[in-house]
This record gives sequence, structure tokens and C-alpha cells, in this order.
Amino acid sequence: MKILFDKVTILFESGEVQTEMYLMVTDKIITYIGKSRPKDAADRVLDGRGRVLCPGFYNCHTHVPMTLFRGYAENLPLSRWLHEKIFPAEDRLYPEAVRAASMLAIAEMLKNGTVSFSDMYFFCDEIVHCVADTGIKANISRSTVAFDPDIYAQKDERFQESVQLFEHYHNSADGRIKIDMSIHAEYSTVAASCRYLSEFALQNGARIHLHLSETAAEHKECLERHGMTPTEFFEKNGVFRVPVIAAHGVHVTDSDIEILKRYGATVVHNPVSNLKLGSGVMRLTKMLEAGVNIALGTDGAASNNTLDVQKEAYFAALLQKGITGDTEKLKSFEFVRMLTKNGAQAQGRADCGKLAVGGRADLVLLDFDKISIMPVYDACDSFLYSVNSGCVEMTMVDGNILYENGEYKTLDIERVKYQFQKVVHTYFE
Amino acid sequence: MKILFDKVTILFESGEVQTEMYLMVTDKIITYIGKSRPKDAADRVLDGRGRVLCPGFYNCHTHVPMTLFRGYAENLPLSRWLHEKIFPAEDRLYPEAVRAASMLAIAEMLKNGTVSFSDMYFFCDEIVHCVADTGIKANISRSTVAFDPDIYAQKDERFQESVQLFEHYHNSADGRIKIDMSIHAEYSTVAASCRYLSEFALQNGARIHLHLSETAAEHKECLERHGMTPTEFFEKNGVFRVPVIAAHGVHVTDSDIEILKRYGATVVHNPVSNLKLGSGVMRLTKMLEAGVNIALGTDGAASNNTLDVQKEAYFAALLQKGITGDTEKLKSFEFVRMLTKNGAQAQGRADCGKLAVGGRADLVLLDFDKISIMPVYDACDSFLYSVNSGCVEMTMVDGNILYENGEYKTLDIERVKYQFQKVVHTYFE
Repeated sequence: MKILFDKVTILFESGEVQTEMYLMVTDKIITYIGKSRPKDAADRVLDGRGRVLCPGFYNCHTHVPMTLFRGYAENLPLSRWLHEKIFPAEDRLYPEAVRAASMLAIAEMLKNGTVSFSDMYFFCDEIVHCVADTGIKANISRSTVAFDPDIYAQKDERFQESVQLFEHYHNSADGRIKIDMSIHAEYSTVAASCRYLSEFALQNGARIHLHLSETAAEHKECLERHGMTPTEFFEKNGVFRVPVIAAHGVHVTDSDIEILKRYGATVVHNPVSNLKLGSGVMRLTKMLEAGVNIALGTDGAASNNTLDVQKEAYFAALLQKGITGDTEKLKSFEFVRMLTKNGAQAQGRADCGKLAVGGRADLVLLDFDKISIMPVYDACDSFLYSVNSGCVEMTMVDGNILYENGEYKTLDIERVKYQFQKVVHTYFE
Repeated sequence: MKILFDKVTILFESGEVQTEMYLMVTDKIITYIGKSRPKDAADRVLDGRGRVLCPGFYNCHTHVPMTLFRGYAENLPLSRWLHEKIFPAEDRLYPEAVRAASMLAIAEMLKNGTVSFSDMYFFCDEIVHCVADTGIKANISRSTVAFDPDIYAQKDERFQESVQLFEHYHNSADGRIKIDMSIHAEYSTVAASCRYLSEFALQNGARIHLHLSETAAEHKECLERHGMTPTEFFEKNGVFRVPVIAAHGVHVTDSDIEILKRYGATVVHNPVSNLKLGSGVMRLTKMLEAGVNIALGTDGAASNNTLDVQKEAYFAALLQKGITGDTEKLKSFEFVRMLTKNGAQAQGRADCGKLAVGGRADLVLLDFDKISIMPVYDACDSFLYSVNSGCVEMTMVDGNILYENGEYKTLDIERVKYQFQKVVHTYFE
């Protein structure tokens, strides 16, 4: 199958813009990018006029089944939000509910240009099957916690579940599905568990997904408990020996940032969730200056409320300008990179997150012929500041057009809505 | 003409939600709201299932012709943005350009549920005609500046133009068009001009639209210049004797807030523009506690980039939680009120901004049957945190459906786009 994008404006992962371009996809791979029309005949030609083609977006921190709790616990601080509303509701989860909620989340993400996500939750078998069925990509991790130093890691059923998931599904579905190890957070683990889990990850080539210094209280309590920051705690227990996706990082110190940089960890910035739960604003400018790999995430729908990672780029850019008062330092291209290349790097997908011949065809086609976008002086600036999810016309993963103009290829959206609503009705009523 | 909304969920301006309601519009007026179906036959019945009906939104601070400069001057601080890019570009404006750019702005606003806006710009004749033709409502003001204390107000052609606009158009188009007086800002006026202009407003029943303490530098320079804050300067020169729309208020002091409250001035919060230009975050929580009337605005498209005031409510809510760390104080209903009733109050439209029998039928119908909104636990929370402009199905002003599912009643959108693009091409190329 050959698909040609004809005379399209391309926004590369670097933020570079080229107009009147041709891009050919052959099966799963980008096989041509150039100024002249390729000689090969295409099975389908997509008219690129008024359109911008860019790499698909990476949502590097989320909990997809939490669409079930979207709007369920509004206007609360993180600790009350968790303990009074979310944890009790999660206690009642069951596989079919997780499946229905994950399908809705994936449908929403495909509609807004997301090609891959990093998830941390439970009932991960269900999430794996949703990802396999829909054609999206994901790094899935089973959230592990360990409160008792005597029953850590290897004896814990959550860890055993992670190992089984890894053995069964890592790099399955032609590499679309990856299994990461997870340490929920410093405050919900013990040192021995971190050491054991990170040793497993190191031996088996796995990555680790964790929550890091999300709130000031969490950071402070760790200092009191261990005499070190959460970043230092994880470093000491060997966690950064493997590639880490560290969500939030709102309250990391300057020396924490040096540690994160030194080990090549990715910090996932979740600006909307951090605002909504009153956690604060991550020091993005500082982290970028230090050279930390930054990706973006929505967090779960219960603290966002949408799963639109391009909107996170918009918030991230505006917040840094408004909070630091420096409107010139961070340019638009940096946010394109966070959404694409940096996300693929965080997930360990070397052939993804970029528009290059030989790379995977994970693409988003945006309609720029909208009254709320025009005029376009620089397509990269317009992408960041004017585009919203309503501009996404098409989302392609591994050369498959999974979403196009309201239609899904791999899922029946009316059925997804029906199954989801059925769960909601039985769940809370 | 009678239009019936049938079994619809109503979100009132107070934030109250009622399901399975009937609302009848007869010509320009809401004539029935109730739980049972009205006896009168309707000319058109709109199915309310899966829909939420709410009062139309007020964008209380903008400069509609600036759609022409959307994306034209990115990543700059306010002073460089103005002096290096915007002022030189504005110097080359001409009536047809203002008309084309205003029409695009109005089309965008109707599409996102805006029923009225407060504008400050020049070539206001053109803006008046666009408002008259399209059926939207607006408070239009001619931006006045006065740098020379010897050539102030009454001798100034901008002030004369304001007076003529007022005499010709105030309360025209069945009250849809109102003309406000304008004082651009403290840093661009002189005391005598403020006294003269506010005296004219007082004598003629006009309102005043101005920029107030947008940046820290502006506030500080005023203290150096006058030994008082901009708010105190305006108070001393009689400006608050009439109803004032004060845009921004990012850097007002506690005692300024007391002054604004005492005179019943409206402060218009423009969170996105304030972030984008590095101006900071207005102390919304503090102002609400003090009892100041707060409305919302987008500012011009050059510093936003969209004219979507419902998005401003979303930003305002998230910013207050994230910056103050208090996630519980401000409830969702407060933001609904800012978008509707408070805006109508700011504009002096007593019969607007609310869903009440006898009031003007300025309504927005939202599609809540979207995967990115479900489930809905509380429609007011979902409205604030999950809804975006893509959910607007219909915008009605004075009983006229001006926008419905992509179609405009009073404008030819392809012609609007064509005229706009024609101006853009001749303007910068």
C-alpha cells in the first residue's frame, strides 16, 4: 500500500517548515520526502493544500482507564482527590470497566493526533488488548507499590504481574506494544523494592515509569523520611541505571535536575494536571537549559480532563512565558520536539517520532484552512498557538490511517461509547 | 417565530443545572422555561437530548481587527511586541483591512459561542458595520491616547471620533451596538484628558473601556510619574464616576482592588494574553473575595492567538488552582457567571447574560455527546473542564440562530475567508 501526500506543508520534529512537499508512505515506512513528485504510483493520493503534515504526538504520562473518572472529583487537592474519591472508586474496578474506559481514551487520543502513549495502571492485560486491537502504540506499565520492607518487589503480586506482562507482551504487535516496569512513587515504595525492580529492568532491557516530586508535600516528606530528595532516593537505589520516564518533576531541586540529565532520564511535563491539582508549575525552562529530555503528558482524565497532549504543549509554552516573564527564551520548535522526537526517545522507539525516510509512518495531518488559524506567518508558531484538536484530519500509525475526518478504521465508535456508558451507569448508579 | 428547545439540559448563568427542560424563544425573547412542555406550538423544535443549553458568552476585552496580526509577532515581550511589530503594522491599516479582519473575528467568535464582545480599536465605523451586518452584539470604543497636556481630549481627533460614533451609533441595531468611551491606558494619556473624557461619559451615559496595570513596568512607571498607581490616577481624575471596563489588572494592589470594588468597575481577566506576553497572572481569587465584578476576555488575536473566551475560563480556573495551590476555593459556577452575567453587566445589558423569561434570547447549544466529555457527573464542571469550542452546535443572538453546525446565517464564510486572505497577501507581501 502506497500513500502519497501531495503538495503538503511539512512541519518536521525539529520545528522546521517546508512547503509544497511530497511524502510517500509504503506500508509502514516513510519511503520518500522531497520537493519533486516521486515517480512511483500511489494507491491513494491525499491533497495537501491548506494542510500541514507532522509527526504524530506522544502522550508520555497517562492512566487511560481513568476516563471513567473524568469529572468525578473536581476542585480538590491531590491528597483528598486521591484518598476520598479516586482510590475508593478504583477499588471497585474490574476488567470490563478498564477495557471500556481504555477504548474511549484511545478513541479520544487518535482523534487528537496521538500515536503513542505511556501508561501506568492495573488490569494491564485489558490495556494491552485495546492497544493491540486499535493499532495505536503504547508503553504499558503495571503500577507497583511496596509499603512493607519485608514484602517487597519479587514477592509482590504486582511485580510478578509486571514480569509476566513483560515476558508475554514486550515488543509485541510488531513492536507497537512495549512493557515498562513501574515504581508508583517514592512515597509508595521501599528501597529494597527499587533495587530489585531496577535490577530486573537492567537485566531484561526494560524501562521504568514513575511519579517524581509531583507535590511540594511529597518532596518534603521524602527529605524527612530519607534525608534525601525523591530523585536522590531513586538514584541511590539504582533506578536510573535504566531509562526512566519520570512524570511531573514539579518540585525537583537544581541538583536533582543534574542527576536526571546525567542519567538521560526523561521528565514528563503534565502542566494541566499540575495546575488542576494545585501542585504548581514545573521549571521547564531550567530543565531545558540543563539539557534534560522533556516529553509531555496529559496525566489521567480525572485530573485534566482531556487526553489532548497538543494542548499540553500550548499550556507549557504559555506558562513558561507568564511565570518566568521571559517571552523570548523558549521558541515554538522546542514544543514540537517535546511532542514528537523526545516522546519517542522516552519510549525507546528509535525509528519513530520523526519524519525521515526509513522511519515509521506515524503521522498527523492538520487542516490549516480554519478561520481560527489564519493567517499563517510561520506554521510552527501557528501549530503551537492556534491549532487545537479540531484541526486533526487524520492520524496514521505504522502507515495505517486509524482516524480520518470523524471515522475510525479499527474501532466502532458508537459501540465504544455504548460500552463505556453501560459501565458508567452500573458503576456509580 | 417560535423556537422550542425540547428536553434539554440547561446550565444557568448561576452554574445551576436542570435536566429534561423546555425553553421557548419567541422572536427575540425567552418566553418559557419549565419542566413541562409549553402549550404553544413552535415553528421549530430542537432536540435537546445529549445537549446543554447555556447563556451566550461575553468576550469583554478584544481588538477584533487584530486577527490580521495573529501569529505575526510571536515570542516577544509586550513592549517589543508593540513597538517593533504591532504599532508599525497598525500604522499601515486601512478601512477595508479592518473590515475583513473584523469579519473573520466575528465569524470565529460566533462559532465558539460568543454573543457579545467589547472592543477597543480604530476605524470603528467598519467594526460597527460588521456588527450591524452579522447580528452579534458589541460595545465598541475608539482607542484614545493623549500625550501632550496642551492637546488633550476635546481637541483630539480621536476623542471627536468617539463622540461622533457615540452620537451616531450608541444603542443602534435594536440596542445590539453600544459605543463606549476609551482611554487607552494611564501611560498613554494625561490627567486633563481623563477628566474631560469621563465628564463627557458621565453627562451622556457612556461607559469607559481602558487598559489597567497590565505589566509590572507600567504599574511601576506610573508610581514614579504620578506618585500613585494607575487605579488611583484614574480615580483622582474622575474616571470611575461611570461604569468602567478595566482590562488586565494583573499588577493592581490590594487598595486598588478596594477602589475597583467601591466604584463597581469590572475587571476583565485575559489569562492567555497575560501569559503569552509575559505579564503574569491576575489575582483572581483575591478580586473575587473582594467582590469585584470579573468578566473574561481574549485580548486581540495577536497575543492569544484565538478569540475563544470559554478557553479563557478554563485557563483562569486552572491558573488559580495551580498558582495559589488552593484547589477548593473557586468553584466551577463562578466561571460560568464570569462568562455570561458578569459580562452582560460590564456592558450595561440588563436584559442579557441570563436564562430568564423576558430576557433576550442569547443562547449557546453545546453537544455533550462527545467522547472527550463523557461521562458527565456534573454538567457545570464538565462545561468548565471538558468542553471546548468544538462542542458549540448553535449560537443564537436576540433569537436569531447566527451559527449552526458549521453554517452561518448572516455571513458567507467562504467570502469572509477570501476577503481576509486578499488583505493578508497585499499587506505583508
